[in-house]
Amino acid sequence: MHKVKIKDIGGELGLIERIKSKIKPYSKDVVAGIGDDAAVLKYGKKNYILFTTDMLVENVHFSLKYFTPEQIGMKAIEQNVSDIAAMGGIPKFALVSLALPRNIDVGFIDRLYSGINKKSKKYEISIVGGNISHSEKIIASVAMIGFAEKKYLTLRNGAKIGDLIFCSGDAGKSSAGLKLLKQNTGGKSIKKHLEPVSRLNLARKLAKIGINSMIDVSDGVASEIRHICKESKVGAIIYADKIPISKDTIIDSKKIKKNPIGFALYGGEDFELIFTANKNKMKQLKKHGVKAIGEIVDKKYGIKLAKDSKKYNLKNGFDHFKRF
Amino acid sequence: MHKVKIKDIGGELGLIERIKSKIKPYSKDVVAGIGDDAAVLKYGKKNYILFTTDMLVENVHFSLKYFTPEQIGMKAIEQNVSDIAAMGGIPKFALVSLALPRNIDVGFIDRLYSGINKKSKKYEISIVGGNISHSEKIIASVAMIGFAEKKYLTLRNGAKIGDLIFCSGDAGKSSAGLKLLKQNTGGKSIKKHLEPVSRLNLARKLAKIGINSMIDVSDGVASEIRHICKESKVGAIIYADKIPISKDTIIDSKKIKKNPIGFALYGGEDFELIFTANKNKMKQLKKHGVKAIGEIVDKKYGIKLAKDSKKYNLKNGFDHFKRF
Repeated sequence: MHKVKIKDIGGELGLIERIKSKIKPYSKDVVAGIGDDAAVLKYGKKNYILFTTDMLVENVHFSLKYFTPEQIGMKAIEQNVSDIAAMGGIPKFALVSLALPRNIDVGFIDRLYSGINKKSKKYEISIVGGNISHSEKIIASVAMIGFAEKKYLTLRNGAKIGDLIFCSGDAGKSSAGLKLLKQNTGGKSIKKHLEPVSRLNLARKLAKIGINSMIDVSDGVASEIRHICKESKVGAIIYADKIPISKDTIIDSKKIKKNPIGFALYGGEDFELIFTANKNKMKQLKKHGVKAIGEIVDKKYGIKLAKDSKKYNLKNGFDHFKRF
Repeated sequence: MHKVKIKDIGGELGLIERIKSKIKPYSKDVVAGIGDDAAVLKYGKKNYILFTTDMLVENVHFSLKYFTPEQIGMKAIEQNVSDIAAMGGIPKFALVSLALPRNIDVGFIDRLYSGINKKSKKYEISIVGGNISHSEKIIASVAMIGFAEKKYLTLRNGAKIGDLIFCSGDAGKSSAGLKLLKQNTGGKSIKKHLEPVSRLNLARKLAKIGINSMIDVSDGVASEIRHICKESKVGAIIYADKIPISKDTIIDSKKIKKNPIGFALYGGEDFELIFTANKNKMKQLKKHGVKAIGEIVDKKYGIKLAKDSKKYNLKNGFDHFKRF
C-alpha cells in the first residue's frame, strides 16, 4: 500500500491545514487559535491571554558544534518572546521542558539554565515549572503565557488593502550566519544566528501607535508576508530593493557567493517583525527605524516581488516543518 | 576533569532542587511555581490560571511496539489533564508540539490527532496551536492552561497533622501493565497502561468538599506522599494493606511473580489522586469511593510504611527524571 508522506500533502503547510481542519475549539473564549504567532484567549475585561510554545531539537534547530548551552537556553526563550511580541503583548510566565541524554554533564544543564535565566531576567519572565526527561538528542521546549491589552492585540489577519508593509530591521542575518557556520567561514552574521534577539520593546511601541497586522520573522520575509496575506485575504507587492539588509549580511553573503536577498526572503529566525499599517501612520512609524518594503493590494493581484522593474511570484519560505 | 552527572547530585530530585534554586520569579502573581502539579498564577478576582506541560518521548515514555498512535495522543492529553485535576481545576486550552521523523506516514499523524481530539472532546479542551518539527524519535509535548476558582485550589503544601491520607482508586495498575508488556504476557492491566484515565471529575468533587492537599500519581504512591510531606513540612504513616489494588493487578502480578504493592508504591502513571483531608470529611469523601490509606503526622516521625505490624521507611518512587 502506498504510504502518504508529509511532502505528498503539500509539506508543512498542507499538514498544518490538515490538522487545523480536524480540530474544534470547545470554548467561545478562543479569539485566535491555530494560524497566529500565539493563541489568543479571552479572559477578563481588559486583557487577553496569549499562549505559545516552541521546541528546539538538536541537529534540527541547533547543533552543539555551533551553539553553547547558554545560547540554546537563550534562543529557547527568545523565540517564544518573539511570538508574544508579534501579537502586541508582553510575556509573563514560562514552562521549560527538557529532554536530555542520560549521561549529560550537570554543567551543561547549569549553563543551559544560565541562558534561560539571562533572558528571563531581561524580560521579567517567571519560569514557573516544566519537566525533565530522557532523549538521545537534546530537546528544549518552552511554553509561554503573555498578556495583551485588548486594544493592542495585533493579529495576522488585519492587513487592509492600501496598507504599507514594514520590516522592523535587518533581515536575513541569522540564516546568513548559519550558512557561514556550515561553510566553516567567519563573519559577523554568525552571532546573529547564535544569539537572535526578539523585538519586544519595538512591538509594544508599534501596537500602541496602531498597526493593522503583525508577524515575527521565523521563516523568512516571503513566508511571513504569505501568512499575513492568507489570513487577511489580501495580496501584496514587495520591493526587493527596499528590504533592509545589513552591511554585515552583504559582506558575509559575498564571502560565500550567495545573494543576501535570498537570505532575507527565504532564510529564517531573524525575529524581526513584519507588519502592515495605514499610510497615515508612516510619520510616527519612521521614528522607530522601521522600513516600508511594500504594499497590501487586492487578493486578485497575488503576492509579488518587484525587482529590477520586473515582478515575480513570491516563492514560499524555508519549508521545514514549522509553527501552526 | 571529573564530569558531574545527574546521578552524582541526587538524581532527578537533586537536579530539580538545583534548577529551582537558580530560578527567580519576576512576578508577584506566581502563587505556586516549581514544586506542584501545575503552576498557579494570579489573574482576576475569582480564578487562578493553572499552567502545566508534559512531554512524551518515544522509547522513554512509550514504545511503538505497545502503543497505537491514538493511545499516544490520548495519553499526551490525559497526563496534562491529570495535573490540572490535581490542583482542583478545570483544563481549558492546550498547545501540542510534535517532533516527528521526516518520513513518517501522514496516517500516523492523523491517528495521533484522533487520540488528541477524542480526549479534547471529552474534556472540552480547545487545542489552540502548537508546532511540528523533526526528530528521529517521536516526541509529543503538550502545554495546558486551566482555571481554578480560588476557593477550590488545592496545593501539595496544605497537608495538616492529623489529616487522613486518601487514594482515589486502584494504584499500580499502569506499571503492572507495562511489566506485562515487557515480559510479553497478557492481562487486563495492559489497557490501564496504554489508556490511563485521569480523575478530573472526582478531583473537582473533592475540591468542592474541601480537602487540604492533593497530587496525582505520576511516579507511584510513595513518591507522591513524599512530595506532599516535603511541601507541607509534615510526616506520614501509610498502611500498606489499605492501599487500593484491583483484582486484575493482583492476578497480573502473580503471573509475573511480582508483589502488587510494589507496583502501587513505586510504579507510576496511574493518574489516581493522593490527597489529605480532615477526619471530619471522612463521611462525605467515602461516598466517592476513595480509600483512607494513612495519616499525616509530625515531621519528626518521618515517612513510614506500616506492614505486618512493622514500620519501614518509605523508599523513593520510580526515579526517572521527572516533573518539577
